[in-house]
Amino acid sequence: MDITGKHLIASEFVAFSRNTFNASRAADESIIDIPFYEATKAEINAACTAAAFAFDTYKTKSGIEIAKFLETIAEEIVALGDVLIETAKAETGLPDARLNGERGRTTGQLNLFAKMLREGSWVNAIIDTAQPERKPLPKVDIRMMQVPIGPVAVFGASNFPFAFSVAGGDTVSALAAGCTVVFKAHPAHPATCELVATAIHKAIIKCDMPAGVFNMVQGASHETGAELVTHPLIQAVGFTGSFKGGKALYDLATRREQPIPVYAEMGSVNPVFFLPGILKEKGDGLAKSLAESVTLGVGQFCTNPGMFIVEQSKDAEAFVEKTRNELASISVGPMLTSNIKNAFLSGVNKIKQTVGVNCLTNAVEGKLSPYLFTSNVAQVLANEEIAEEVFGPSTVGVYANNIEEVLEFARKLKGHLTATIFGTEEDLLKYRELIHILQEKVGRLIFNNFPTGVEVTHAMVHGGPYPATTDSRSTSVGTTAIYRFTRPICFQNCPEELLPKVLKESNPSGIIRTINGITAKH
Amino acid sequence: MDITGKHLIASEFVAFSRNTFNASRAADESIIDIPFYEATKAEINAACTAAAFAFDTYKTKSGIEIAKFLETIAEEIVALGDVLIETAKAETGLPDARLNGERGRTTGQLNLFAKMLREGSWVNAIIDTAQPERKPLPKVDIRMMQVPIGPVAVFGASNFPFAFSVAGGDTVSALAAGCTVVFKAHPAHPATCELVATAIHKAIIKCDMPAGVFNMVQGASHETGAELVTHPLIQAVGFTGSFKGGKALYDLATRREQPIPVYAEMGSVNPVFFLPGILKEKGDGLAKSLAESVTLGVGQFCTNPGMFIVEQSKDAEAFVEKTRNELASISVGPMLTSNIKNAFLSGVNKIKQTVGVNCLTNAVEGKLSPYLFTSNVAQVLANEEIAEEVFGPSTVGVYANNIEEVLEFARKLKGHLTATIFGTEEDLLKYRELIHILQEKVGRLIFNNFPTGVEVTHAMVHGGPYPATTDSRSTSVGTTAIYRFTRPICFQNCPEELLPKVLKESNPSGIIRTINGITAKH
Repeated sequence: MDITGKHLIASEFVAFSRNTFNASRAADESIIDIPFYEATKAEINAACTAAAFAFDTYKTKSGIEIAKFLETIAEEIVALGDVLIETAKAETGLPDARLNGERGRTTGQLNLFAKMLREGSWVNAIIDTAQPERKPLPKVDIRMMQVPIGPVAVFGASNFPFAFSVAGGDTVSALAAGCTVVFKAHPAHPATCELVATAIHKAIIKCDMPAGVFNMVQGASHETGAELVTHPLIQAVGFTGSFKGGKALYDLATRREQPIPVYAEMGSVNPVFFLPGILKEKGDGLAKSLAESVTLGVGQFCTNPGMFIVEQSKDAEAFVEKTRNELASISVGPMLTSNIKNAFLSGVNKIKQTVGVNCLTNAVEGKLSPYLFTSNVAQVLANEEIAEEVFGPSTVGVYANNIEEVLEFARKLKGHLTATIFGTEEDLLKYRELIHILQEKVGRLIFNNFPTGVEVTHAMVHGGPYPATTDSRSTSVGTTAIYRFTRPICFQNCPEELLPKVLKESNPSGIIRTINGITAKH
Repeated sequence: MDITGKHLIASEFVAFSRNTFNASRAADESIIDIPFYEATKAEINAACTAAAFAFDTYKTKSGIEIAKFLETIAEEIVALGDVLIETAKAETGLPDARLNGERGRTTGQLNLFAKMLREGSWVNAIIDTAQPERKPLPKVDIRMMQVPIGPVAVFGASNFPFAFSVAGGDTVSALAAGCTVVFKAHPAHPATCELVATAIHKAIIKCDMPAGVFNMVQGASHETGAELVTHPLIQAVGFTGSFKGGKALYDLATRREQPIPVYAEMGSVNPVFFLPGILKEKGDGLAKSLAESVTLGVGQFCTNPGMFIVEQSKDAEAFVEKTRNELASISVGPMLTSNIKNAFLSGVNKIKQTVGVNCLTNAVEGKLSPYLFTSNVAQVLANEEIAEEVFGPSTVGVYANNIEEVLEFARKLKGHLTATIFGTEEDLLKYRELIHILQEKVGRLIFNNFPTGVEVTHAMVHGGPYPATTDSRSTSVGTTAIYRFTRPICFQNCPEELLPKVLKESNPSGIIRTINGITAKH
């Protein structure tokens, strides 16, 4: 399939600019000889206008119609075949198995949202019926539901070229909500983006969806993103990436004439607490698993365990030593981009040079390898930079002198996506206060599992208090991610024939609703 | 009961500042001889610290315990007796009947939230059970629920001294969510605020709640509010008032080191569309009701119909004339404060002087009276100021030449709390496109009812797109207002005995939950 390097706007691949950029092969940083066009201001405006125009039609589509659309996107992605995996592999350096798995996760995600739409109860229909006889004033009939918020700007993430890119979690939750999308392709995998965009393009035609329901702009400059977020027709933003990038978009969006919500998932250090009893029982096995979790996907996960906490003891020292040996035996593949590799190397160097930090791993000059540092609670609390996220295969072991120091460390944590506790039954009962504290700090609290691996399911929270995200009230993974792109509306005293289907007295969709405070299929 | 003029901080009435301010009698603008202390920076810090300290205990209280607390607050408000009504009457000028009704609404609101907490399903428990046999990877057990966001700053509104003040909608939804509160009293009714604070204070003691669960600071300066919103321990803000005030708080909160959500309900013009058929059938009766709605509570409602739209016709002219006569026959009481009165008089003067506007009412010099203006679609679209909210008993009738102009006018609307359509069955079918357009503009779409009167119930949406509010995803009235002050958390692979009660396998609370996608009492 020929890659055009163009933008998808209102169902056409177009480009008018002369500015182009190229992606690189992750494996050797060599330039891939396909020019991609930098979107102009006029093209971004055209994409947003197309999305706003399409919204007027798309929002009236039924759940069944949108479900069919999402399922067709999944089919068209599969139909791209091997070229998709090969293209992504060249651009990202991720291995086949990972990319195959991620493609499955992406189509699974589309189908999961489709299933939710077919069932239909997600609109949260709440009905309070009239009481004309009520004194002193009659009670009127009021019916509430969730409706789409409008055109959404979505930013592709570098580390998930399928699952958090063109047809990834943000796009699917926006489309499922009934919102149209303007997608900003990630400049590290623009050809992968174009391929997936062609799949969506085919699905749009097959399902007779309005042309501008999904648009994609290519661009390597920050201005492209800024232009998109500040466009007056855009009503919400989904982003996964760095703190710096997410916060910049948040600042732009909240300072617009009409401020809009920004759902930026900005990663975190994801502290892991290993409690004494389990270290004694299972320290060796845990060290092996920790090393695997730290290096999974070359450490390029938002939920990578960048820090772990142990209480000083012989067991703890043996655990750290074992982790060091395990890490030394793991060779890591190339990172996603040279920028990411350089940021990683400069990040680990910064930690290395911090007072009170030991580097236990021996990096070979010019060769990418995992890092293990150790420090202690006092040092980490004194030097914030030790606790900053280093995106890549690196972790810091923090020694605490006693349980009080563990709790103190937990209390001082900022917001993270996850926190993890490894402990025996006895450990966990003894450290109840730790559980209590950590609940304030994260979106997901994990027991005896590693944080890498985010299940796409109804109950997942992939989010957390600032600075893990810009909006702790949301998740970017799982079906409740849809509510980032909806708002409630209520209809008062509306004639039955004019009510949306889900609010009609007769409940023709047979969904679960809350009527006069009772939730049931009625 | 003696009014101290002090702040309630950690269950004590204290004040250390020498700066005081006084409230006025609304009836004659005379000073009420009770000094109220301007909260100092140290006092605001003490209140926020008390709220944060109390949060650690309060968030662990059961739904039943919090329900009892809310019900006790309601009882203590009633126990204040006539002095509460008399005090509020002096400070706000609102008549007995209104204040009695509003007290009932306030206690009803507390009891409605208590009922929801006793039932318990509001936490939205979502459970996905483990599938250890799943290939290629086993599925882990994940359980999600809503938890409180932290200490909340609440600002009292001038126009609802009970229902949107100390123990009003924002406070009750924050407390119900498990959040602690720092309440900024409204300087126009500080004695009323102190009385209600004493009721909450008694409930705190009776229910053995942590001392800092509710705190109140007095203050007439903008700095008090700014200090509160920028305090690092505050995690969300509830506000009802002017656009200027709400937007200023939003700007402060989004520019903090840790940005926080602001739920500012900033009012709107609440356009009412009278369609041709119903004007012919019921024009006279509607004119009378419109005049009543415009002047209800001296027009000091967020949902006051500040603008109505009719298509040019004999019926429409008769309707406007009848409205004029009705308004002329209504004498309005004093406004809440001299500031509000002055803003009203300057607002109506501004409209009066705008090109293309006719003033149909004759105001008597120095006497407060209702205003009726007329204009037309072309003029209103050309002069935005005609469509700006004037807080008080005033409305602008807008003539449209035809149905296309009606639709054009609707398309150009910004966000409003409500829009209303009056029409016969035939009208409504003919104007389906109008219904379609208005859904994008409001939180509540009303048919053949006036917008004043906001039912406190499950399905109410008192909110809407910007600039009606700073967060269209929320409502400030009704039980779903609770979700403004919660965020989701999920527990992965958590042992049964450590799970929160609502997530335990055994469902001891017997609440409605969603398990593997099925919503039921299980």
